[in-house]
Amino acid sequence: MRFYRRSDFNHDLTAGLVLGVITIPQAIAYAFLAGLPPQAGLYASLVPMLLYAIFGSSRKLVVGPVAIAALMVAATVSEHARPFSDDYLGITAILCLQAGIFLWILRLTKMGGVVNLLSHPVISGFVNAAALLIIVSQLNAITGLSQSISVNPFIDLYSVYLQRPDWNLVAIFLGLLSLALLWVLNNYSHFLLRLFKPDIAAQHPLTNLGPLVVAVFATLVVFVFSLDARWELTTVGFIPEGLPKFNIPPADISLWLALAPSSAMIALVSYVESYSIGSTLATRENTRLNPHQELIALGAANISAAFTGGYPVAGSFSRSSVNYSAGGKTPVSSIICAFVIVIALLWLTPLFAYLPHAALAAIIVVSVLGVVDISGLRNQMKFYRHDAYVHIVTFLGVVFISVESGILMGVLLSIGFFVRRSSRPHIAIVGRIGSSNHFRSTKRHQVETFDLIAAIRIDENLYFANANQIENRLNKIIAHKKGMRHLLIVFSSISFIDTTGLEMLMRVCQTLDTLNIKLHLSEVKGPVMDQLENSNFLDTLSGTLYFSTDQAMSELQKEIDPFRVKQHEIDLGQGS
Amino acid sequence: MRFYRRSDFNHDLTAGLVLGVITIPQAIAYAFLAGLPPQAGLYASLVPMLLYAIFGSSRKLVVGPVAIAALMVAATVSEHARPFSDDYLGITAILCLQAGIFLWILRLTKMGGVVNLLSHPVISGFVNAAALLIIVSQLNAITGLSQSISVNPFIDLYSVYLQRPDWNLVAIFLGLLSLALLWVLNNYSHFLLRLFKPDIAAQHPLTNLGPLVVAVFATLVVFVFSLDARWELTTVGFIPEGLPKFNIPPADISLWLALAPSSAMIALVSYVESYSIGSTLATRENTRLNPHQELIALGAANISAAFTGGYPVAGSFSRSSVNYSAGGKTPVSSIICAFVIVIALLWLTPLFAYLPHAALAAIIVVSVLGVVDISGLRNQMKFYRHDAYVHIVTFLGVVFISVESGILMGVLLSIGFFVRRSSRPHIAIVGRIGSSNHFRSTKRHQVETFDLIAAIRIDENLYFANANQIENRLNKIIAHKKGMRHLLIVFSSISFIDTTGLEMLMRVCQTLDTLNIKLHLSEVKGPVMDQLENSNFLDTLSGTLYFSTDQAMSELQKEIDPFRVKQHEIDLGQGS
Repeated sequence: MRFYRRSDFNHDLTAGLVLGVITIPQAIAYAFLAGLPPQAGLYASLVPMLLYAIFGSSRKLVVGPVAIAALMVAATVSEHARPFSDDYLGITAILCLQAGIFLWILRLTKMGGVVNLLSHPVISGFVNAAALLIIVSQLNAITGLSQSISVNPFIDLYSVYLQRPDWNLVAIFLGLLSLALLWVLNNYSHFLLRLFKPDIAAQHPLTNLGPLVVAVFATLVVFVFSLDARWELTTVGFIPEGLPKFNIPPADISLWLALAPSSAMIALVSYVESYSIGSTLATRENTRLNPHQELIALGAANISAAFTGGYPVAGSFSRSSVNYSAGGKTPVSSIICAFVIVIALLWLTPLFAYLPHAALAAIIVVSVLGVVDISGLRNQMKFYRHDAYVHIVTFLGVVFISVESGILMGVLLSIGFFVRRSSRPHIAIVGRIGSSNHFRSTKRHQVETFDLIAAIRIDENLYFANANQIENRLNKIIAHKKGMRHLLIVFSSISFIDTTGLEMLMRVCQTLDTLNIKLHLSEVKGPVMDQLENSNFLDTLSGTLYFSTDQAMSELQKEIDPFRVKQHEIDLGQGS
Repeated sequence: MRFYRRSDFNHDLTAGLVLGVITIPQAIAYAFLAGLPPQAGLYASLVPMLLYAIFGSSRKLVVGPVAIAALMVAATVSEHARPFSDDYLGITAILCLQAGIFLWILRLTKMGGVVNLLSHPVISGFVNAAALLIIVSQLNAITGLSQSISVNPFIDLYSVYLQRPDWNLVAIFLGLLSLALLWVLNNYSHFLLRLFKPDIAAQHPLTNLGPLVVAVFATLVVFVFSLDARWELTTVGFIPEGLPKFNIPPADISLWLALAPSSAMIALVSYVESYSIGSTLATRENTRLNPHQELIALGAANISAAFTGGYPVAGSFSRSSVNYSAGGKTPVSSIICAFVIVIALLWLTPLFAYLPHAALAAIIVVSVLGVVDISGLRNQMKFYRHDAYVHIVTFLGVVFISVESGILMGVLLSIGFFVRRSSRPHIAIVGRIGSSNHFRSTKRHQVETFDLIAAIRIDENLYFANANQIENRLNKIIAHKKGMRHLLIVFSSISFIDTTGLEMLMRVCQTLDTLNIKLHLSEVKGPVMDQLENSNFLDTLSGTLYFSTDQAMSELQKEIDPFRVKQHEIDLGQGS
């Protein structure tokens, strides 16, 4: 803080003001999505945002209500209480407190790395599924039906729409109008802005004011034409004015136990979301995020949300981007934003009363459409097919079972694929390329090989899941190459051996002994050498430990030179 | 069979006869351990052994009743019925049939590789735990108490022995005498044999006749002194003479479902046991086992055991070793052995009536003591500490929870450790050794490095669990090396990249772009190159793809030569 400069403050002031006016409609919309009263969204943007600004290691990340956490709250809490009820608010507070505590536990036990198990396909599958669930859940609001939030919005879709309900045509019209307006503003607002200031950039922060404009416009329309009274249009209604009050989450052991798995999942997802946004922004300005510090800061933010009537918070992608592009330099912009929200809570709440749910639904739908990632699936299918399967399984699991089950299925499947892949390692017979000192696969390069020497590169660590497979492959090569006298295993890709792998190596060594073939190793890395020195393998090794494959082959060649028979010429393959 | 020679038959005849007289006391003892009538053990040695001899791919493996399968049967079936009852026999038949079907399913779905998940520490932990459970379960028989078999023998130990029972001193005496006699025969019988034939080897097959001698001796003692009537000593009693009858396992859906997990585990353990013994013997004579064929043969053996009143069978370590050392050449030795058992079943069953349980218990205890492996744990602790933890967890799980839970815990823990280890990869900054073309870690070797170029070798596949970690480490290196112009990543140990790893690489590339550092790759393997060509990574790569690190460093050095500043001299570490 001592280094805080006046010029920074000017930047932070602008960014903070823009952030404030963007946050208010978003916060109300996400509270609505979560099944909470509108003020819960505003409360969640206040103390949690300030605590993160103080403790967080990112200078640009804006923490507060986000769509995905809102969806997870709705899915979890609606199993235990009716949305928009007091019980519902209490259960949300428990969820929030548990998520914060879970993040702190991860920090204390140094288990933060567990989030790395959420692979990219799991996260993109989850985000796409969440987007679909959110959009479906907003259909009711846009068509003017009562806001029922159930465990799975598809059940709503089926039960509500098959009963041919009386749609509120005014709500549908207002919803579609809001969608259209938002689409125009999101894509073309820089053209509008250029009418006033010709040199404005396409990514100018003011282009993010679409939701605010739509909210103000829809509120005015409802107010002027009294749509709420005359057409039974549902609106935000009464918001108690004033700052959040301190309240303690209910202490109900069975409820706490029932919520714990969901809380843990909310905590993990929030952490992954925040961390990935934060580190993306940090990278842009060549600074780094401290993962431990992030756990503490995000934990504190969630715990404070629990005691101030908010709901689980995370780093917001849209608001953090706005903060960055509006030129926010330090967390002071978050403090300015908090001021704007305080002012809104103290004096502006009556203005929100006429804000229609249909417009909020439109804001939510447009904001989640921005995170849908279909091209990711296509890339996964092209690059590593199994990642696409993980994506699809996670997606289906989240849509049709639950967020937790879907993510868990995705994680287990990706671990399963990883173990399965490493249990079928690539094993290449290598030979010298021309007269160079490079040794490459006989399948891809024109290389020199010998009948009496086989050089084999194993492209995987030796461990329990692949030990049998590797032994079988080596035995096949040995059986195939009659009259072989030396087997050289190139260890360049082996970084680790477990005891099952070691046993296998020793068995191979024994087998070769009985066949009078010598086993040699080359390019053994330091850490693997340390391991081997801790076993009696080196005593039983019949051959030599060579520093390089080049050296090994030269010396072995000298030894067998008189027997040198023939040279394979194999077609040059692609790749290097 | 066409190639079967007369000399082979002579060898097979001898081996088969020795095998037969060894099998009979073992089969009765293991049936007793499983909670089954004595003939079940003999039946299990008959048709299953013959079927394996026909279908199996090992010429030396002897399939039949084994101690570990017996223990697993006792643990599973005693939950559903009283040992030695008819219901118990029926449930055992279901277990047996399911195990066989499961093995065939593994073959049909080509999922046989799943047994590779049973790592060496899991198996040794399980075997040690099973040995302990078996020994404890035999205490009752040795002390002359009623043979109650419960889910966990420790519960017996506690409930029976704390009630200060009336121990049968004759049983204890006979049990201890049998133990002592077995110990002497197992360790010193070659000295006895040398009295008759001085040049006999210490490993001669006749040295395995200890159990037979003890069984005959104990039977005679009981018969001569009428110990069963006068001292209430429990003996094997009546065995129905004649061959096994065909019987169909009961069809009870709920029972079938309840037994399925145990059956699957018995099938897996039996397969692993058989396969590892079979491949050890095959290796000794330089032949190979066909894993698919083994699944079919072992499946057939188990299914036949179900229909002929036997119980789950597997390859027997002790009897296969005897077959090997007695000079058995082909599966004909198993057929001879079957003849011996047929003769015993037809005419010798009255002789077994006086065989005391105490002597059988002694035979079981001594045979399982032979498989206990404590040094394995010590080696695991030394070579790879986490394998020792897996061993201990499996051991405790099997002893205190159940065989299935223990093995499952061990497998999950070993997968967990594997993922955890690969998520914290070894990353080395490498440099040129002298003027050679070898590049090694700066931490272990005296190498040449440059301020403007960093060469980094990542010793692990790039995938979701380590992508973040690797990115953080790379960012640290970048931040640490001020003024760097080139980053070379040596891909020699990378055999595979998933989409999370690819995203990370592309982020690193972007970060480096903003810092005006070029990213180069070297020693990219064929399969990885194929992957990268399927993505747009190569288009975004700012630097060059070099064939070798040597070439990369030479060319980069030329480029920066005027700026060449200093050369690190780092102490020569151990290892290569």
